[in-house]
Amino acid sequence: MSREQVYNFAAGPSVLPESALREAQRELLDYRGSGMSVMEMSHRSPAFQEIFDGAKAKLRAALGVPASHEILFLQGGATLQFAAIPMNLMAGGAADYAVTGHFSKRAAAEAEKYGSVRLAFDGSGTRFDRIPSPEELRPGADAAYFHYCANNTVYGTEWSYVPETAAPLVCDMSSNILSKPVDVSRFGLIYAGAQKNMAPAGLTVVILDRSLAGRALPYTPEVMRYDVLLEHDSMLNTPPCWCVWMLSLVLDRLAEQGGVEAMAALRRERAGLLYALLDESDFYTAHARPGSRSESNVTFRTPSPELDALFVKEAAARGLLNLKGHKAAGGLRASLYNAMPLEGAKALAAFMKDFEVKHRV
Amino acid sequence: MSREQVYNFAAGPSVLPESALREAQRELLDYRGSGMSVMEMSHRSPAFQEIFDGAKAKLRAALGVPASHEILFLQGGATLQFAAIPMNLMAGGAADYAVTGHFSKRAAAEAEKYGSVRLAFDGSGTRFDRIPSPEELRPGADAAYFHYCANNTVYGTEWSYVPETAAPLVCDMSSNILSKPVDVSRFGLIYAGAQKNMAPAGLTVVILDRSLAGRALPYTPEVMRYDVLLEHDSMLNTPPCWCVWMLSLVLDRLAEQGGVEAMAALRRERAGLLYALLDESDFYTAHARPGSRSESNVTFRTPSPELDALFVKEAAARGLLNLKGHKAAGGLRASLYNAMPLEGAKALAAFMKDFEVKHRV
Repeated sequence: MSREQVYNFAAGPSVLPESALREAQRELLDYRGSGMSVMEMSHRSPAFQEIFDGAKAKLRAALGVPASHEILFLQGGATLQFAAIPMNLMAGGAADYAVTGHFSKRAAAEAEKYGSVRLAFDGSGTRFDRIPSPEELRPGADAAYFHYCANNTVYGTEWSYVPETAAPLVCDMSSNILSKPVDVSRFGLIYAGAQKNMAPAGLTVVILDRSLAGRALPYTPEVMRYDVLLEHDSMLNTPPCWCVWMLSLVLDRLAEQGGVEAMAALRRERAGLLYALLDESDFYTAHARPGSRSESNVTFRTPSPELDALFVKEAAARGLLNLKGHKAAGGLRASLYNAMPLEGAKALAAFMKDFEVKHRV
Repeated sequence: MSREQVYNFAAGPSVLPESALREAQRELLDYRGSGMSVMEMSHRSPAFQEIFDGAKAKLRAALGVPASHEILFLQGGATLQFAAIPMNLMAGGAADYAVTGHFSKRAAAEAEKYGSVRLAFDGSGTRFDRIPSPEELRPGADAAYFHYCANNTVYGTEWSYVPETAAPLVCDMSSNILSKPVDVSRFGLIYAGAQKNMAPAGLTVVILDRSLAGRALPYTPEVMRYDVLLEHDSMLNTPPCWCVWMLSLVLDRLAEQGGVEAMAALRRERAGLLYALLDESDFYTAHARPGSRSESNVTFRTPSPELDALFVKEAAARGLLNLKGHKAAGGLRASLYNAMPLEGAKALAAFMKDFEVKHRV
């Protein structure tokens, strides 16, 4: 199938803005008359430094990152940050973790190597189908930080509020960063793998209140120490240059399209359309409870695993790709990131109605 | 300047085979009729798994990696491996490090966090202008491993032999991997950042004797534990997919061009041409001593720092780019990786002769 015949609902890596890809394609062999691809440029060259600084400035503008916070462009994914965060911020003490899904659970498990982890919430009892209310959160005393995951890609739940805690907030925003406004000043640290709303896989963005750096455990690798990374403006070693350039191209499109406010409206409409259909149907079941539902990832199922599998197959034949749920959750999942047009959600809704009519018993 | 007018002598990221870039460009928006860019593909999809397995198989074939060894595709650069290696292999004991340049020195400094580092050689006394002879190496007793850097990018020296040691050999091959045949079975672990001979920055290749995994220090991050990475075939988390694809495209060209044997002949000729010129000249001075000279990075200087700077400027005006030496070494440096044609070295030699005639006093 050609690109025009396809909507890609992958949970990440995932669809990127086509015009960003076209610009990358045009300049692939020769970036702005330099005679070189961005892939071939020294990261210490003025041309790449301009790309790097530009991407940082655009991201700062897009999210309204205050002067108190610095942006780091790193490698290793959110998974490496699961360790880097406690190594840098926990100082061997205690931290609070709200466990609302697959990745926040992994983050908490990793942090246990470096200090005392206290579960401020644990949603595993109801298969991670909801986000706790503010009253349910049980932060401990003297926490080094409070960690949560803003959007749970696997289970399709999303925090509709920012917790109020005495400790600095640390938030994994991998699957909803740049999809809605966020008051960055309320966070000690925000981190996100790029491969959903930002860039190809291989880049990790960390936005950090500078005052939190400088208390890393002694065995922290140099390239994971925030103080060292701040000192070297992320370039202690070679950054993932191509991904940084792609981020810059994606941020240009974001600005043209009206920024995070426009993305927030778009995601509400896209996801709303699917949730309305799910709520009206007695064929499909939404996984996430109302009030906890993600606008990035809509998780649902048909009456049987066999029909789920058939759904994935028939949808793919219509160009609706990658709708299988994560193996930890099963069922179905439609991921709706910034580059997914409203038409994609409409095409999926139309298919869902057809599939229901065809297979209702 | 256009691509045709330029030779890029950058030390890394550096020039890539043009036909690999052209294939990437052609398929950038739509990989083999999938309707998706490789940048947009789920790393768990069959299409990407095929790319991933293909790149591994091609690398195994290109280097003759024996069945005892596994290939990992990671993030974080050689710099993250500076920590991962002692965390995984040192078990808090001792290891030997031969310090022959900038990066082996950093590797040794990092390892000191995790156990006892013993310097089997330290070349800092002569500004890292040579590789020790086998007789000069002083490995300690009961070393967990012996670490060295096969090619010193900054100072332009290269080991012409593989050390014989009782302990497993661990080798940083970032700047000469795939440029000549190597008996992988002699190594416990080989690692390399991709951005010289393999792919764009953002991918780190580790080739590991499986029997060495499983003794990581307890605080080792999951995503840095070799046993965990082996178990997940490198995909504990999302890999740098685009870089893996680019590696696959580069390895296709390597095979077409005659593999590492052909690259060894090419590098000998390219570097030989420049060293002959340096030895004949009383204007230029080669940094590395004969017998220790790198065929990846030729380091030299003119009679003065002012002329060095002028050299870089005038060379660039002729399309000979990125000839400035690393800031730790100063002077000039021509990096000659696999994608640099013989014509590039000839063009540089011609310019060097002209520059000498023009500026000789």
